[in-house]
Parts: sequence; C-alpha cells; structure tokens
Amino acid sequence: MQYDTMPNFLKKRAFLTPDRTAVFFNEMAITFKELYEGSYQTAGKLQRFGLQKDQYVGVLLKNHIDSVVILFSLQLLGVKAVILNNRLSSKELVWQVNDSRVTALIMEAEFTEIKQEIKIPVITKDQLFATTPEVPVIQEEINLADVCTIMYTSGTTGNPKGVLQTYGNHWWSAVGSALNLGYMESDRWLCTVPLFHISGFSILMRSVIYGMTIILHENFDAEKAITDIKTKEVTIMSVVGTMLSRIVDTLKDSQLPIQFRCFLLGGGPAPLPLLEACLAKNLPVFQSYGMTETASQIVTLAPEYSITRLGSAGKPLLPSQLKILLEDGEIAPPNVAGEIVVKGPNVTMGYLYRPDITSEKLNEGWLRTGDIGYLDEEGFLYVLDRRSDLIISGGENIYPAEIESVLLAHPDVADAGVTGIQDETWGQVPVAFIVRKEGALVTEPQLKQFCLENLAKYKLPKSVHFTDSLPRNAAKKLLRRKLGEWVNEGRVNE
Amino acid sequence: MQYDTMPNFLKKRAFLTPDRTAVFFNEMAITFKELYEGSYQTAGKLQRFGLQKDQYVGVLLKNHIDSVVILFSLQLLGVKAVILNNRLSSKELVWQVNDSRVTALIMEAEFTEIKQEIKIPVITKDQLFATTPEVPVIQEEINLADVCTIMYTSGTTGNPKGVLQTYGNHWWSAVGSALNLGYMESDRWLCTVPLFHISGFSILMRSVIYGMTIILHENFDAEKAITDIKTKEVTIMSVVGTMLSRIVDTLKDSQLPIQFRCFLLGGGPAPLPLLEACLAKNLPVFQSYGMTETASQIVTLAPEYSITRLGSAGKPLLPSQLKILLEDGEIAPPNVAGEIVVKGPNVTMGYLYRPDITSEKLNEGWLRTGDIGYLDEEGFLYVLDRRSDLIISGGENIYPAEIESVLLAHPDVADAGVTGIQDETWGQVPVAFIVRKEGALVTEPQLKQFCLENLAKYKLPKSVHFTDSLPRNAAKKLLRRKLGEWVNEGRVNE
Repeated sequence: MQYDTMPNFLKKRAFLTPDRTAVFFNEMAITFKELYEGSYQTAGKLQRFGLQKDQYVGVLLKNHIDSVVILFSLQLLGVKAVILNNRLSSKELVWQVNDSRVTALIMEAEFTEIKQEIKIPVITKDQLFATTPEVPVIQEEINLADVCTIMYTSGTTGNPKGVLQTYGNHWWSAVGSALNLGYMESDRWLCTVPLFHISGFSILMRSVIYGMTIILHENFDAEKAITDIKTKEVTIMSVVGTMLSRIVDTLKDSQLPIQFRCFLLGGGPAPLPLLEACLAKNLPVFQSYGMTETASQIVTLAPEYSITRLGSAGKPLLPSQLKILLEDGEIAPPNVAGEIVVKGPNVTMGYLYRPDITSEKLNEGWLRTGDIGYLDEEGFLYVLDRRSDLIISGGENIYPAEIESVLLAHPDVADAGVTGIQDETWGQVPVAFIVRKEGALVTEPQLKQFCLENLAKYKLPKSVHFTDSLPRNAAKKLLRRKLGEWVNEGRVNE
Repeated sequence: MQYDTMPNFLKKRAFLTPDRTAVFFNEMAITFKELYEGSYQTAGKLQRFGLQKDQYVGVLLKNHIDSVVILFSLQLLGVKAVILNNRLSSKELVWQVNDSRVTALIMEAEFTEIKQEIKIPVITKDQLFATTPEVPVIQEEINLADVCTIMYTSGTTGNPKGVLQTYGNHWWSAVGSALNLGYMESDRWLCTVPLFHISGFSILMRSVIYGMTIILHENFDAEKAITDIKTKEVTIMSVVGTMLSRIVDTLKDSQLPIQFRCFLLGGGPAPLPLLEACLAKNLPVFQSYGMTETASQIVTLAPEYSITRLGSAGKPLLPSQLKILLEDGEIAPPNVAGEIVVKGPNVTMGYLYRPDITSEKLNEGWLRTGDIGYLDEEGFLYVLDRRSDLIISGGENIYPAEIESVLLAHPDVADAGVTGIQDETWGQVPVAFIVRKEGALVTEPQLKQFCLENLAKYKLPKSVHFTDSLPRNAAKKLLRRKLGEWVNEGRVNE
C-alpha cells in the first residue's frame, strides 16, 4: 500500500541533515551521520552473529549512547527488538525471553545473572563491538505495518504480554505529537526516562523523524536535569509526576531559561497541588495520557488550555480518536465516568502470540485501555484511575496480580491481596495483605525476601499485613478497592 | 487498513482548537469552529442540491473566504472536488467539465459564459448560500486512500488530464512539509497564490492539519503582501519567482519583521541573481520543487543549506524518495542530468479515467515527472528544466502543444511551433512560429485573436513569427529546442 512504504528513517535522516547533532550523552555527542554509520557498522557485526530480518531478538541495555546505536542497527536489519526492562528480576526476564521466543539476547556484560539462566545465544555489548563487521543487508525501505519493537506490559490478571509496536505506530506517534506541540529546528529533548520504556524509546524515534537533538541521561537526577536544561538548550523534557515534583523542589526559586518550552507529563494522573505549584512557578507543563499500547501519548492538553483545564489530560491527537464506554457498551454522556477506549494509527495491532487477548482488547481498531475516565462537555479527558488496580510507582507500572501470584506461591500463604498506597517519593507503592495457612508462622521480612527473589526491586511491597480473610465478592473476585479502604481507615501504618 | 483511517480533518481540528483563527480575508476572520460550522451548514445546502459522497463535482471559484468554506463542505460530504482554474477560457473549462463527468458545477455567479455552454446543473455561490440546509450526512472518518480533489494539468502532448489527489496525498504533503520547515503555534501562512492550484490548496490543508492561521488574498499584490506580513504577523509565504522578484523590488531597503521565517519558493527554477538579491537583503528563501502530481513540494532545501546550496531545490522530504534516470533506464551518476523520478505517499495514484497515461507515468509508485535535473555528490537536486518544453509564466504552466493545436486548427496554418522566451515580468512567455498554407495571408493580429477565442489569456503567444519550415527531426518530431535557439539567435525581436 502506498502509504505504508517509506525510506528507512535513520538512513534518510542522515542523508537529509547529516551534520546535526543526534545525541548528547555525558561528554559525548554524535551527529545523525555518525549515528547512521555506527548503526550500519553494528548491523554488520550483528549479521555476523546470524541476525537477520524478521527475527525476534531480545535487548537488555541501559540508557547509553551505545544502546541508541544498537537499537537503530536492529531497525536497519529489520530485526524485531524485544526491549526488556533492566529493572526486572532474572526470573521475570527469563519468562519474557522464553515467551517472546527470541533467537538471541543482546545485553550489557554486567547483567550476569540472567546469562546463566537462558539457553539462547547471548551477545554482550563488548563482544558485539569487538567483532569485525560484515556488509549488512539493510532495509532501504520500511513497511509501516512491520513490527519494529515489542515491549512487555503486565495486565490485571495473568502473565505479562508483549505489545507489538510497528514502525507505523512509532511514526504516527511522533507526527501526532509534532502537530500538537509543534516542532522547530531548535528543539532539543531531554531524555532521562528509560529507553526500554515507550516514554524513552519514543524520544529516540522523534529524534530521527524530526531531525531533533536529544540529550540522553543514564537515569533521572534532578540536579543534572536542571543543569542540562540550562547549559544544553533543552526545550522539552518528558517527566512523570515524581520527577517533576523533584525538579520543582530542586529549582527552589530559580527559573528555567526562556527557550524551555515544556515538560511533557505522562505516567498517570498528576496531583493537582503539583500542577498548581508548576503554574505558580511559571513552569510549562503539558499533561498527557498514553501507554505502551499507544506508542506513547495519545491524548495531550493543547498549549492554549494548559491553564484553564489544569488537571485534564487534554484531547486525542489529530490522527487519533477516543470514547468513554459504560459497562453496557453505550457511550457515556459528558461528565460520566467509564472505560477509556482509543483508536488511531499509533495504537498497537495486538499482543505477541496472544490472539485471545488481542481480540478481547481490540475491536475494529478500538482498544479497551481498562483505564477509567470521563470527558467534560467540551471533550477534555479527565483520567480518574489507571486500570482500577494499577499501581504507578515512580513512573513504573506495577500490577498487584503479579505480586499476589508470587506471594501465593509461598508455602505458608493461603491468600494474598496487594494494593497501592500514596507515597511521598514514588507517588504510590504496593502493600500486601496476607492470610496465612493454618498454623503457619511466616513473617513480614521472610515474605519480603521471598518477593525479592522473584520480583523486580521496585515491585517489593513496602509493608506486609496479616489478616484473617480478604474482601472478596460473591464470585470470589478480590475487591482490591476494599483493601484501599482498609489503608484509608488506618489499618496500615505507613 | 489501520493507517488509512483518520477523523475528518476539519471536524477534528475544530474540536481540538475551536477558538484559533483559521482564515483572515480582507477585514474578515473566522475561527476553526466557525469554519467547521459554516462548512457544515454549506454541506447541508449542497445536499439539498442532491450532492452526496463519491460524486465528482466541479468547482470554479475565486480566492475568497467563501471558497474555503465551500471546499471544506465538499470534504465533509465526501464529494470529490474537480477544482477548475478560473483563468481558463470557456472552451477549456467546458472540455474539463465534460472530461471529468462532474454531476454539477459550483461557481461564482460572474462566470456567466461557461454557464451557457454546459449541460450539467450549475449552482452559483449566491444560490447556494440562499438555500435552506438539510442535516448533512458527513464523513466522520476519512479514508486516506479516497480521492479528495482533482486538478487538471496539461501534458507535453494531447489534452489536459485530471490528477487524482487523495486525502492521504494532502495529509502526507502537509506532514512532510512540517517535518522540514518546522511548525509552531505562532505560524501564519500568507496565501496569495490561487486556491485552484495545488500551491494554494495545499496551504488550506496545512491550515486544518496543523491548526494554523492563514491570511488569504484574492490575488497577489506586492504592496498588500508586504503590509500583511508586517501587520498580521505572517511567518511563511508561498511564492513563485516573479512574485518574489516584485516583493524584492517593492521592499527596496526596508526589512521584513523578525517573525517572518521564510518564502517557500516553487513554480520552476529561480534565476540565481534573484536568490542572490534575497540573500543580500537577508530574505530567507527556501527553494522547492513539486507539482500537481506530488500535492505540492516534494523536494525542499533544508534550513541549514539555504545559503551553501543556493540554487538547489534541496532533498526529498522525509517520507519521499527521488532518483534521476538516464534514457536507458539506468540511475544517473552524480552531476549527470536525466529525468527526475519521484515516489512517496504524497504522489498521485494516477489520472482520472486515464489508465493508459497512469501506467505510462507510474511504475511501482515511482512517477516519471518528465522534468530534467541532476543530483550533486551529496544528493542535492538541481532542476535544469521543467519538462523540456514547458513554459512557466508567472507560476502558471503553459504547454506549447496546447497552443500549437489551437494554431493548427486555423484554416490558414500549415504548421505551428511554440516555445518560451525570457520575459522580465512573467519569467517566460510563449512565442509562436507559423508556416502558412500556400497562398494564405493570415496575419499576426488575426492569429492572436484566434488564440484568444480558444485559450486562456495568459497562454496567448506574445509574438507570432512566419517561417518557411519548422525544425523537425527524421521522425518529424518538432524540435522545440531549435526554436529556442532561433530566439537566442535574434530571429525573434522582443
């Protein structure tokens, strides 16, 4: 189809604006030409390891200029990158590596633990860069319908699933964002969010599609972010609420330079006091709403409404659509909450090897997000709750079901329920409620240690509470909202 | 297909930014909300005249705010607009009306002549606006593969043909332009070029896709353009060489305000002295190359090269591709001229009712433009010649074959050849060479009068010269380049 074919993004970008800076990382900087040449070399090296078009290959990397090169080398080859979250536990990673059936794993040498636990070939970054390249067979043209990346996301129940992200999803996400926020040659985007998240990866794609310089940090540090905004002429920065909050605290009474255009705020509804504090300090914040399945933001507050609709996530980007569905499938009237359902060229075509979940969540291009929200009379979206039980901790999604299934695997645990509580530093953190088996004596520290062996650190329950029974409805479905009420009633001491 | 469906551009735009100004025209201004409401009303009126989705309808209008409303009302209904050039003669218009098989013609009341010569229903603007509207059936979603507009273009031989322009062609053209020139909320585009040309119509589409204000003039007037650039905060203006030249002359030593970002220069290669004069006066000019078949620019000089590559049209926009083919079909090496061949989502899918010409010009998405040019070592395009025999006069394309066929129809003419000569005001104008039939005595004024009855005024040969024979090759093909040499040799007195 005519609209699905395009020149290879990076190759074309390097041809159009070879000498513009693509990435700053610490004291390093590379132009688009150098990024292309580095990616081309790396593609030749990967090809020597047997990698080729249409394979699924795992990627387990940190935020680093080398990771940018590797990620684009995979796009040159047409390899589908399964981008893994490096904060996950070995067990979680092994599960995703197996589930995605990747033929190899490219990783930092330091992630030694997982190396011993998987059976597929592992290519460490050091091995890769030390290899002599072949002449790579590169994708001169991209088909927008082809899968570019896969990122795993957990659901309300069951195992994590791989979200398919096509070149088209990334392209349209970048274009939709440019048509809303604008784009100028002078723009520079600060990326302190992980490249393994769509929040970070989408900045990479924008860089190549727009021809825009990005400033990449290994991780978020408020002092360093502010320094680089001031000295490296940053105009836009992606943040989640906790990051913005630390920036506000760190800035104290100082101002950001005039070229700074906006904080693009994602990762769940932001507390109103934070937005008001930003307003008072003249910090431009654009709230947005998006997820792995929408290849980053799908709803963003347009510039002229950033003040009058404070707290709204805005309206769907030009190419995208949104509706609120009631439980009976009818469209909700204004100001009535229901499930947020979205459609657009940036929306995933489904989940890897999971036609069952794909057909459950997607219907004629409309994706059921599971999130709750409402539209006001003018169509501005207010997000009430990310999937009723989702815990967002420092921008990371934590699904209670995942922690519960680990706790239930402990021999002394009869029943387990997890919910999120407010936390000053992280926004939310998980807490667990446990019903012990009769006569069992397992303790809070023992259960925490058990979780640590099976889960990423950030998913560790902050506290574990023992109880005689959990609130369940007639169908025995756990009422996690009730657990939330227990917290509010003071049954949990923070 | 997922990437082909989008919300109706205007409806979505009016939803996103209802209160932004869409169009300034003389002392009038309308917001996007008002433009949508006006177009919705007009769609309801057109429906009362029987217009409905997928019909072809002719449009013969002037640059006016009402024309903007009418053009968008047709998009709301999903009617395919055959946009006619109001500078054509009645005979030419009737030919295009018949060729396109339109079911009706919407036109200014003042174009009375054509009204009497066509058999289909005519809806004058006054009739239309005086009608009581129905509730229109509007296209809530657009399929990018659907035809939005048809514009006629003449070829090197034969009759004019209708170029199919899809919603996708217009969308991708707008997006490709934004990714190159950038787009900011503060942008305002001055449109003094005709809306019936792709140069003007593409500005309308950008307005709705970007949410950008346009300033529309009925026609080009250098004084008025400069005044509005200064007082209405214009940032971009589309021009052809002759317009730019008049602006430079009119400006004299005065400057344009700092917010003015660029002249987007199209309509054929610009003379180097003009570009140098602009450079000397600090007027930012972006050369570009495009045509009706590419829904406006497909090649534009990126900002950082506007000085070092003065005279180049630049590189193909991000979604598009370009190659130079030699006569044997091989790709030309750098600095060797050949035919310019282009591909991309903004390229037409073909010609109305003309599968023969479509398959001749289009091959796997690659369009043979007929234009001659070369690429330098770094891939910058230099256009040498629009289709070897094309005459570009004040931004209008004039095809010699068309004038010749009129001249040949005169009873006293045995043979006729037309070529372009340089003209200070218009860039180029046509001149004719005539071989009279034996004993025939037709004069220059008589032939000019004959042309006037059959052709648009701007196509009228500036002079007519009589000769014993025309330069033709062995196959009797007219060598128009030879005529060009005759002009240079002084056989034509300007």
